[in-house]
Amino acid sequence: MGKGRIEAFSDAVLAIIITIMVLEMKSPRDAALSALRPLAPVFLSYVLSFLYLGIYWSNHHHLLYVTRRISGAIMWANLHLLFWLSLVPFVTRWMGESRFARGPTMLYGVILLLAAMAYLLLQHAILLEEGAGSTLAAAVGSDWKGRVSLLTYAVAIPLALLRPWIAGVLYAFGALLWLVPDRRIERQVSRARQEVGTAGER
Amino acid sequence: MGKGRIEAFSDAVLAIIITIMVLEMKSPRDAALSALRPLAPVFLSYVLSFLYLGIYWSNHHHLLYVTRRISGAIMWANLHLLFWLSLVPFVTRWMGESRFARGPTMLYGVILLLAAMAYLLLQHAILLEEGAGSTLAAAVGSDWKGRVSLLTYAVAIPLALLRPWIAGVLYAFGALLWLVPDRRIERQVSRARQEVGTAGER
Amino acid sequence: MGKGRIEAFSDAVLAIIITIMVLEMKSPRDAALSALRPLAPVFLSYVLSFLYLGIYWSNHHHLLYVTRRISGAIMWANLHLLFWLSLVPFVTRWMGESRFARGPTMLYGVILLLAAMAYLLLQHAILLEEGAGSTLAAAVGSDWKGRVSLLTYAVAIPLALLRPWIAGVLYAFGALLWLVPDRRIERQVSRARQEVGTAGER
Amino acid sequence: MGKGRIEAFSDAVLAIIITIMVLEMKSPRDAALSALRPLAPVFLSYVLSFLYLGIYWSNHHHLLYVTRRISGAIMWANLHLLFWLSLVPFVTRWMGESRFARGPTMLYGVILLLAAMAYLLLQHAILLEEGAGSTLAAAVGSDWKGRVSLLTYAVAIPLALLRPWIAGVLYAFGALLWLVPDRRIERQVSRARQEVGTAGER
Repeated sequence: MGKGRIEAFSDAVLAIIITIMVLEMKSPRDAALSALRPLAPVFLSYVLSFLYLGIYWSNHHHLLYVTRRISGAIMWANLHLLFWLSLVPFVTRWMGESRFARGPTMLYGVILLLAAMAYLLLQHAILLEEGAGSTLAAAVGSDWKGRVSLLTYAVAIPLALLRPWIAGVLYAFGALLWLVPDRRIERQVSRARQEVGTAGER
Repeated sequence: MGKGRIEAFSDAVLAIIITIMVLEMKSPRDAALSALRPLAPVFLSYVLSFLYLGIYWSNHHHLLYVTRRISGAIMWANLHLLFWLSLVPFVTRWMGESRFARGPTMLYGVILLLAAMAYLLLQHAILLEEGAGSTLAAAVGSDWKGRVSLLTYAVAIPLALLRPWIAGVLYAFGALLWLVPDRRIERQVSRARQEVGTAGER
Repeated sequence: MGKGRIEAFSDAVLAIIITIMVLEMKSPRDAALSALRPLAPVFLSYVLSFLYLGIYWSNHHHLLYVTRRISGAIMWANLHLLFWLSLVPFVTRWMGESRFARGPTMLYGVILLLAAMAYLLLQHAILLEEGAGSTLAAAVGSDWKGRVSLLTYAVAIPLALLRPWIAGVLYAFGALLWLVPDRRIERQVSRARQEVGTAGER
Repeated sequence: MGKGRIEAFSDAVLAIIITIMVLEMKSPRDAALSALRPLAPVFLSYVLSFLYLGIYWSNHHHLLYVTRRISGAIMWANLHLLFWLSLVPFVTRWMGESRFARGPTMLYGVILLLAAMAYLLLQHAILLEEGAGSTLAAAVGSDWKGRVSLLTYAVAIPLALLRPWIAGVLYAFGALLWLVPDRRIERQVSRARQEVGTAGER
């Protein structure tokens, strides 16, 4: 199975998710600039979700870059990830419109957690295909970022019911953690290339 | 005619259909988590439709993978399939918002039935181009899944007017039936490759 | 300049236009099937526009298939076509919701006319690049379909203000005219290939 | 890292942004053609934004065409540009619906300015990768258009608070400036090719 179509489909879904969120930001009826002030929490939650979806797109890009074969399991693990991400606009809007109220802020974290677990599942399904000696296996390594993310969300979710703003800060931290694209894979790819190059020179 | 563009167009349409459905799930005005409860049927119908569209995307992917030539008939059969699938968000929303009422639940089945028939038509149009001795013809074989699906919908549609929940269960069954991607095609492709390989060795 | 991206962008825009139209069909509040009856004109105008956009996608596909170079003029002629097509959801909704009232039905024809003229302009821009002896020039030939379409819309537009249903029938006729994909180009391509083949044999 | 996916993702996002704007133009409830008159400013702001997004797509296309390597910085600079462009539908709607009121017209300019700066940042990130002797470096040259654009927006933003229509004219001027696609890159590409050709002949 070609991986071109799974990339194209995921790109399209992520692009749509990232873009329709802005549809939820209703322009104010009032023409004064002060009418923007109540939109601040909506805008903030939009920025946060844009970051997260950008991160998912970037990591997904790196992950599939080193994938050579697409099995049925990978296909469904990918759709499963897209399912949880497709709920991001819903929770973004709710969290923003409720001005980071307890319930919506908690639910936002739950969706982040489920999406992160779905990503790990996809990574696992790909590793099963690629094998333990693959470029990807070396690149992922101990995957401390993945673990710290899960921990962050797991801590933020109950905190959201007490102090929603702390949960918000933790979500932002979880995004910043990933902002730097996954260098591990880039490094492994160039290392693999160098080895091939060295082997070729001998 | 290149099949790249027909794949790209179908991917885009399916990605949009699968994603805009979530726009229909209006976030509650109330900020309490209990405000999510009335959304349960809307969410359930979203999950069901997400599954169905994922299945259509996956099967479409497999089907076009073994297609070598795109005729005008294939192009229009494909658009015809996309037409019925484009109505899925409409019936999903209606079924969910009416909390699986009789009429909307029946209509949902009608759209599933029409989409399934459109898929068979597309498969038929491709088989006409590829010929009886093609990889696809061997892969499709008796197509029992296609037949069972049609039967399931045909049974569920009248039942929806009596017991909508039975129809709902049948729709879910129709989805689970297809969840495993079409192994027949994968098997035939690898068999065809082996034969080519064996022939090459001789 | 690669034509891959202009195709991908046009595919995405057309896929979105064709799909968001269904968002306009609001599901009825009532759960009875009879609640669908008032939607009939909305559905009818949706089917008509789906057909037209499918035709434009198909013809656009054929047109770019024989295009070898993308100039700046082609790029902008393409965006110009997409602009008029992007207004189709607006007029579709208005015509449907007004139940084919005079004004909206007339405006629908105006948009069809402007889109058809934009398509001819794009074809012209491509012909300028490809030259009079190109495959495309031979394929387009006298372009009677393009002329009959323009005439149909030009007749339908004023008629819409007297008898909107006649305009509606003419729009449907204009779509059926194009339903058969542009065989001229297919024929020319295969003829060109045969000539190359014959030349190669000599 | 392949640049195919960054192009595909950007194409999809730009296609969606350009298309969902038309969703904001609500079709009038009244069926009379005169009901279109109040929509004039909404339509005008739509045309302006369509032009700008078309220009961004076209320039983005040219820019990535001469890019050979995608670094992490380029990926994020690209997402940053898409972020500001994703806000265009929001400000377009607000400016249109407020009939070019002072505040919204000013905000429109601010978004144009931020998007223009994000584009320069992306160009800069690519130049860093490509190096000073690259085709792109020669093509961009003094980049007077980029500078004039920034100046235009910087002048228009404060003016919007005094005479919004002057700001509107300046925005239109800023678009017309870019309407001609970036010939500098086309010229450099063909010059680079000629040099390669001449070098080959020697």
